[in-house]
Amino acid sequence: MHYGEDRVYKKIEVIGVSKNGIEEAIQAALLKAHKTLERVSWFEVEEIHGHVGDDGLVSEYQVILKVCFALK
Amino acid sequence: MHYGEDRVYKKIEVIGVSKNGIEEAIQAALLKAHKTLERVSWFEVEEIHGHVGDDGLVSEYQVILKVCFALK
Amino acid sequence: MHYGEDRVYKKIEVIGVSKNGIEEAIQAALLKAHKTLERVSWFEVEEIHGHVGDDGLVSEYQVILKVCFALK
Amino acid sequence: MHYGEDRVYKKIEVIGVSKNGIEEAIQAALLKAHKTLERVSWFEVEEIHGHVGDDGLVSEYQVILKVCFALK
Amino acid sequence: MHYGEDRVYKKIEVIGVSKNGIEEAIQAALLKAHKTLERVSWFEVEEIHGHVGDDGLVSEYQVILKVCFALK
Amino acid sequence: MHYGEDRVYKKIEVIGVSKNGIEEAIQAALLKAHKTLERVSWFEVEEIHGHVGDDGLVSEYQVILKVCFALK
Amino acid sequence: MHYGEDRVYKKIEVIGVSKNGIEEAIQAALLKAHKTLERVSWFEVEEIHGHVGDDGLVSEYQVILKVCFALK
Amino acid sequence: MHYGEDRVYKKIEVIGVSKNGIEEAIQAALLKAHKTLERVSWFEVEEIHGHVGDDGLVSEYQVILKVCFALK
Amino acid sequence: MHYGEDRVYKKIEVIGVSKNGIEEAIQAALLKAHKTLERVSWFEVEEIHGHVGDDGLVSEYQVILKVCFALK
Amino acid sequence: MHYGEDRVYKKIEVIGVSKNGIEEAIQAALLKAHKTLERVSWFEVEEIHGHVGDDGLVSEYQVILKVCFALK
Amino acid sequence: MHYGEDRVYKKIEVIGVSKNGIEEAIQAALLKAHKTLERVSWFEVEEIHGHVGDDGLVSEYQVILKVCFALK
Amino acid sequence: MHYGEDRVYKKIEVIGVSKNGIEEAIQAALLKAHKTLERVSWFEVEEIHGHVGDDGLVSEYQVILKVCFALK
Repeated sequence: MHYGEDRVYKKIEVIGVSKNGIEEAIQAALLKAHKTLERVSWFEVEEIHGHVGDDGLVSEYQVILKVCFALK
Repeated sequence: MHYGEDRVYKKIEVIGVSKNGIEEAIQAALLKAHKTLERVSWFEVEEIHGHVGDDGLVSEYQVILKVCFALK
Repeated sequence: MHYGEDRVYKKIEVIGVSKNGIEEAIQAALLKAHKTLERVSWFEVEEIHGHVGDDGLVSEYQVILKVCFALK
Repeated sequence: MHYGEDRVYKKIEVIGVSKNGIEEAIQAALLKAHKTLERVSWFEVEEIHGHVGDDGLVSEYQVILKVCFALK
Repeated sequence: MHYGEDRVYKKIEVIGVSKNGIEEAIQAALLKAHKTLERVSWFEVEEIHGHVGDDGLVSEYQVILKVCFALK
Repeated sequence: MHYGEDRVYKKIEVIGVSKNGIEEAIQAALLKAHKTLERVSWFEVEEIHGHVGDDGLVSEYQVILKVCFALK
Repeated sequence: MHYGEDRVYKKIEVIGVSKNGIEEAIQAALLKAHKTLERVSWFEVEEIHGHVGDDGLVSEYQVILKVCFALK
Repeated sequence: MHYGEDRVYKKIEVIGVSKNGIEEAIQAALLKAHKTLERVSWFEVEEIHGHVGDDGLVSEYQVILKVCFALK
Repeated sequence: MHYGEDRVYKKIEVIGVSKNGIEEAIQAALLKAHKTLERVSWFEVEEIHGHVGDDGLVSEYQVILKVCFALK
Repeated sequence: MHYGEDRVYKKIEVIGVSKNGIEEAIQAALLKAHKTLERVSWFEVEEIHGHVGDDGLVSEYQVILKVCFALK
Repeated sequence: MHYGEDRVYKKIEVIGVSKNGIEEAIQAALLKAHKTLERVSWFEVEEIHGHVGDDGLVSEYQVILKVCFALK
Repeated sequence: MHYGEDRVYKKIEVIGVSKNGIEEAIQAALLKAHKTLERVSWFEVEEIHGHVGDDGLVSEYQVILKVCFALK
C-alpha cells in the first residue's frame, strides 16, 4: 500500500469481552473479526464497560471498539 | 450465557420508519434485523427524526438505532 | 417510495481516499459501496483527515462517512 | 422538488409541550410552526424533558426539536 | 418558589424499565424516585435503550434519565 | 402559565458582547432580544469567547447563548 | 466596527444544496441568506451530507451551516 | 493526602442559583453541599443557564456543576 | 431478575485511584462502592486521568466511572 | 490584516488560575501567554473548574481556555 | 518506521485561511507548519468556518485542523 | 504550590505508542514529554487506538493524551 493510491476502508463496531482485562477484551474482539472478516488494519476504542460480580469484583470487561479493514 | 465467558458482539446502525409512533418505528427496525441477521439482543436509540405532511401532521417517525447481536 | 410507508435503512461507515480532494474521496467511497452493497441513498461526512508528504503537500484526503441504503 | 436542484432550507429550534406523551408534544410544536412559518418539511428531536407533579406523575412532556423548512 | 430566591437543586441519574413503552419507563423511574427521595421537580431523558426477546419483539424499554429535585 | 397546558417555545442563538465581563455580555444580548422579540423567558450559555488587545488584556467578552421565549 | 463596542449578533441555521461541490453549497446558502436577512458576517459548517443517484454518483451536496449577522 | 495512595472520590451534580452572578451561584451550591455532604474538594461547571424577568434583566443565574468529595 | 419486569437502577459517578494501573483503579472504586452502597451491577468508564511524579513516571491512575446498581 | 489574505493561526490550550473570579483567571492566562508567546488575538473558554477550601468557599477558579495567535 | 516500534507524536491545532476553497486553506496551514515545525505526518479537520464579504460571497475559508508530527 | 496562588498551566496533546499495553503507551509519551518539556504534572487520556498485525494480534497500542505542566 502507498499513500495517494485510491483505497476504501470499512469501519464496523464490535464488543469484546474478557474477564482478564481491557487489552484482553480488545484482543478477543480483534481475533473474532480476523476470522470472520477481511484482515483488520486498526482499531479505535469507543467505550469501556464491565460487569460486577456479587463479591464486588469485576467479572468481565466489555470494550466497545471500531474495527477497520480495507475493502477489496 | 454467563458473565465472564468470552463473547463478541456486533453493533450495526439501522433506521426504522413508522407513521404510528416512536415505539413502532423501533419495532419495525428490530423485526427487519431479526429476519436478516442473527438474533438481536438489545438496541440503543441514536436519534429521532420525522417527516411532516402538507397538513402539518407527522407523516412518519424515523428512529436511528444501534442494534446489537452476538457473533457466533 | 412514499413517506408513511414502512421502510428500514442501514447505515455503514466507510473511508474514501483520494489524492485529488474531499469531493473525490467521498465519491470513491460511494462508488465502492455502490458495487458491493445495495444502491446507496445518501451519505453523511463524519471526519476529514489526510496524509502529508515529505514536501509538506497533502498526499491524500481521507474522508470518513456514513453511507445509507434501504434494506430490501 | 428534484435532487440536484439548488434549494436552501432553514432549521429553527422549538419546544413542544403536552401532558399526553412525547409524540403529542412533537405534534404540538409542528402545528404551531405550521401556522406561523412556511410549510415544515421534517424535524429532528434534540432533547426530551418533562415536569413532575406533586404526586410523582409526569405533568407534561417537553420536547426540544429542530424544525426544518424550505426558504422560498 | 420565586425566581431570584437562593435555591439549590440536585440531579441524579436513574434508569426506568418498562415493557409497555418509553413514557411508562420514564414514569416508573419517577415514581421510584418520588418514594425514596425528596419531591422530584423535573427530568431530562439521557438515553433510550431496550432489550429484545427471542421473537424479535422489544421485551423492555430502558430509559436513562436525570431526575432533579430541590435540596431543603 | 400552568404546567400541563399546551405551550410552544422558540429558542434562538445570539451573541452578546461587552468589555466589562461575562454577565454584562449576557445581559447585553438579553436586552437586545427583549426589544426586538417577544418577552424572553430564559437563556442557556453555549460558549464564552473573547478578543484580546495589544496589551494582552481582554478587550471584550463574547458570550454565545440560546435565548428562549413563548410563541403566542 | 471596533472591538470593545457593544454589539449583538444572531446565528441561524441553514442548509445549502448544490450538485457541484461543498463550497458551492455553502455559497448557495449564503447568497439566499444575504437576500432575505441582514448582511451576513461569517459562517460555520455544522455537517456535510449528500444524496446519491442511481449511478452511485453524488447527485447533490447538502451543507448544514450556522450563518451569523449583526443585529441592528 | 499523598499521590499514589488509594482513594475513592464521588462526583454529584447540583444546581446553584443566585440573582447576583455566576460566581455567587457556584458558591451557593458549594455551601449547601458543604453542610449536607462530606467536605467538598473541587467542582466543575457543566452548564450556565438563567431566568429573565419581565424587564428583560437576568432575574437569576443557574449554574449546573459537578461537586467532588472524598469517600471515607 | 427477568427482562420485562419493572426495575429501577441508579447510576452514580465515582473516581478510583491506584498506582498500579487502570484495571486496579476501576476495581478500587468498585470495592468502595460495594461496601457503602447496594450491590453494584455494572460500570462504565467515563475518563482516564493520572498524576505524574518528579521522575516522569505515572504516580497514580485516576479512573472516573459510572457505577450502576438496582434500587430496592 | 484584511480578510482574504493568507494567514495561519495557532491555538494552544492553557489553564489560568485566580482566587478572585472567572474573568481574573482568564486574564491571568492571557497575560502569561502574552509574555511568552506572540501577541494573542482571541480566546475560547473550554471548561471552568475550581478548588474548594475547608470552609466550603471557592479557594481558586481554574479556567481551561484555548488561546489563539497568528503565526508569523 | 515500523509498527511496534516505540514512537511519540505531537498534535497541534492550527487554522489555515484561503479565499480559494477548503483544500487550499488546509494546504496553507500545512505548508506553514512544515516550515516552522518538524515534518508533518497527517492532519485532521476540526471545523470549517469562513468570512463573508459585503456582496454575500465567501471572502475566505478558515479551516481549523489538528496537525500531527513525530517527536524526535 | 498552594491553592489560591496565581499559576498558569499549558496542556499539549501527544500520542504514545507501545506494543505492550495501554499503560506502557501512556508512560512512553510521558517520558518523552518529561525530557523535552518542563516537568509534567498530570495527563488525561483522549483516545485509545491500535494497529493490528497480519496474525490478527495487536501490534501496537496508540494512546492520544493531553499532557499538562506548569508555565514558569
